Amino acid sequence: MLRTPKNLTDFTCSALDEVRDHAPLVQCITNSVVVNFTANALLALGASAAMVDIPDEAGPFARVASGLLVNLGTPAAESREAMLEAVAAANDAKTPWVLDPVAVGSLPVRTPLGYTLRDLRPSIVRGNASEIIAAMGSGSGGRGVDASDGVDEAEPVARALAAKTGRVVAISGPVDVVTDGRDTIRIANGDALLTKVTGGGCALGAVMAAFAAVDDDRLATTVAAATVYTVAAELAASRSVGPGSFAANFLDALAAVDADDIRRMAAIA
Amino acid sequence: MLRTPKNLTDFTCSALDEVRDHAPLVQCITNSVVVNFTANALLALGASAAMVDIPDEAGPFARVASGLLVNLGTPAAESREAMLEAVAAANDAKTPWVLDPVAVGSLPVRTPLGYTLRDLRPSIVRGNASEIIAAMGSGSGGRGVDASDGVDEAEPVARALAAKTGRVVAISGPVDVVTDGRDTIRIANGDALLTKVTGGGCALGAVMAAFAAVDDDRLATTVAAATVYTVAAELAASRSVGPGSFAANFLDALAAVDADDIRRMAAIA
Amino acid sequence: MLRTPKNLTDFTCSALDEVRDHAPLVQCITNSVVVNFTANALLALGASAAMVDIPDEAGPFARVASGLLVNLGTPAAESREAMLEAVAAANDAKTPWVLDPVAVGSLPVRTPLGYTLRDLRPSIVRGNASEIIAAMGSGSGGRGVDASDGVDEAEPVARALAAKTGRVVAISGPVDVVTDGRDTIRIANGDALLTKVTGGGCALGAVMAAFAAVDDDRLATTVAAATVYTVAAELAASRSVGPGSFAANFLDALAAVDADDIRRMAAIA
Repeated sequence: MLRTPKNLTDFTCSALDEVRDHAPLVQCITNSVVVNFTANALLALGASAAMVDIPDEAGPFARVASGLLVNLGTPAAESREAMLEAVAAANDAKTPWVLDPVAVGSLPVRTPLGYTLRDLRPSIVRGNASEIIAAMGSGSGGRGVDASDGVDEAEPVARALAAKTGRVVAISGPVDVVTDGRDTIRIANGDALLTKVTGGGCALGAVMAAFAAVDDDRLATTVAAATVYTVAAELAASRSVGPGSFAANFLDALAAVDADDIRRMAAIA
Repeated sequence: MLRTPKNLTDFTCSALDEVRDHAPLVQCITNSVVVNFTANALLALGASAAMVDIPDEAGPFARVASGLLVNLGTPAAESREAMLEAVAAANDAKTPWVLDPVAVGSLPVRTPLGYTLRDLRPSIVRGNASEIIAAMGSGSGGRGVDASDGVDEAEPVARALAAKTGRVVAISGPVDVVTDGRDTIRIANGDALLTKVTGGGCALGAVMAAFAAVDDDRLATTVAAATVYTVAAELAASRSVGPGSFAANFLDALAAVDADDIRRMAAIA
Repeated sequence: MLRTPKNLTDFTCSALDEVRDHAPLVQCITNSVVVNFTANALLALGASAAMVDIPDEAGPFARVASGLLVNLGTPAAESREAMLEAVAAANDAKTPWVLDPVAVGSLPVRTPLGYTLRDLRPSIVRGNASEIIAAMGSGSGGRGVDASDGVDEAEPVARALAAKTGRVVAISGPVDVVTDGRDTIRIANGDALLTKVTGGGCALGAVMAAFAAVDDDRLATTVAAATVYTVAAELAASRSVGPGSFAANFLDALAAVDADDIRRMAAIA
């Protein structure tokens, strides 16, 4: 597929149909803060969610899941063990998996774990600019979970990280950037309210895993996931008073967003 | 009590009053995904919630709680130990308890634990059709947390499981089935949006524990819990745009649902 | 500052501006039930949230965080270790920290831990009346997480506890009481719906940590936090049908509440 904005927009519409038709089952090993919102985002979208996150279950499940998310937000000891077990199984069974290196670079337990996981070649690495810079092994990792580095600064690092892993890297920000090291696509959708709901970024990683399950073109599925997600955010924001109503409206919008919305609103470049 | 639809509807109305008057304190050892929604459902209903889920506290608390929920959704090591401790204390103190065998049958850590817990004779076992079949020791346990088997297929298994435990078994689905092995009651309320909010089934287990605290007729209290819950879901669905607004409206409806709603809408047979 | 209602109201308005201008980063080691709501409350208010709650990360992070919350709601083993590590670092680095002694006095693991933490001199202790009485080392600790003792009974205990720790104690209830052992301030705002949403009290502890980060007057910042929080609750309640819509409206109100609302509605005495 020639990666023109038009082609990627068309692909996004058909990939969304595929997700809704097949309800890919996404295993999430994610943090305690966002686990509920992440499951609800997957269900709203039309995917299935299973938070199988303990040792001895995480590996077997990763063999049969449609996709896997590994998020480093609150990496308790059992979770860390489950992550490594799940990733080994996912790689063996060719289950696509997403790494979200939350706060890697700034905290001492998750940072070496994040590098280990990165070197296990996630299908997709998704983070904010600071996290992507840190995941490459440089930069500060940001101030906790916020992005202190800019997307422009992170873009060349993302390309290098994509080249290093041989896969896809996605930077979330006011403009989302998705790259496979060769092509770099920008998606200028979304709303600042997404940053005012915890899990606004984390749940996108799970959605990327759902889309990765329906097609092997990782760059295109990742662009599709980010586009559907951020277009839904725009639809929700237009009806919301603040972050509380936005969170509910966003789940409604993930369930309702359709090809017409995407063709009208997607700002892929 | 003769278990006619009319009598069970009347009982449901009076049991709901009892729950609101006495605010039974339900201890929940449940999964990280739904723990917040479960507590909010109990509070909305008028019950009290206490998520006492660590070893050395779970047992003593189960002696004084009004009811106990044990849900196998994300069974970390400490939770598993707390479950066994709480159940032993609940059985000793005659605290009614509900087992929700999430994904038992398909995952290797929780499956033997689920059988152990089943053999400790829960007051109520609640699950979807696949989980009930698996809890009996047959079937696939479903695809993760979704039901792949049908309610019709599960009903005879539920009756057998009720006979085996000597207690009550509830199957959640488009039509809910509650049986004590002798009588089998069907409740044709609810809305598909309940399956689009994570915890839509899990929180019902907690509500069943709350109702079990106010009367010893386990079949009748379980029918009452399922009826109140699914009638509230119908009320909420009629005002909702999608799963996000539904989750909020459902909590509002659990707080507001009353005897008039139940008499008008309950589809007990 | 002379602690007149007028001065404290003015201070509340300026402290809210400070929180929104500086977005203090609040580390939360809190329970699994309310962790999502707590993060969302901090984000809605304009603060930042980081739930860094594992050993070896909790301590280093507490040195750089703007404030720390330690909440005993579901104290798993790793959390307990992380709490002690974080508090030692916070005390060393002079990071203000809030202790929420959930159900201390009634449960055997958290009670000695609560006393240990109390003796490490938290900047603020926040709880319901029963918890404050129990934190002092007397009383029942309440029935699980509900308050069975009254605010009036707890007030002299709170003053004694403030004298014992040399810091500030806040009792949440129909009227909130904040004392440093010398001055005692009452805030008669809020709404009963706050008690129908799990985390309604717990998230206030995190908000107190955020306000503590912007000024050293602990009594005044604690009054400011309680006032902003409970005025937002009143604003939200006036638009809500029940606890589900209230939770969303409350987050919206935390984001929108301003000096005009506070001057008009604050009932500080």
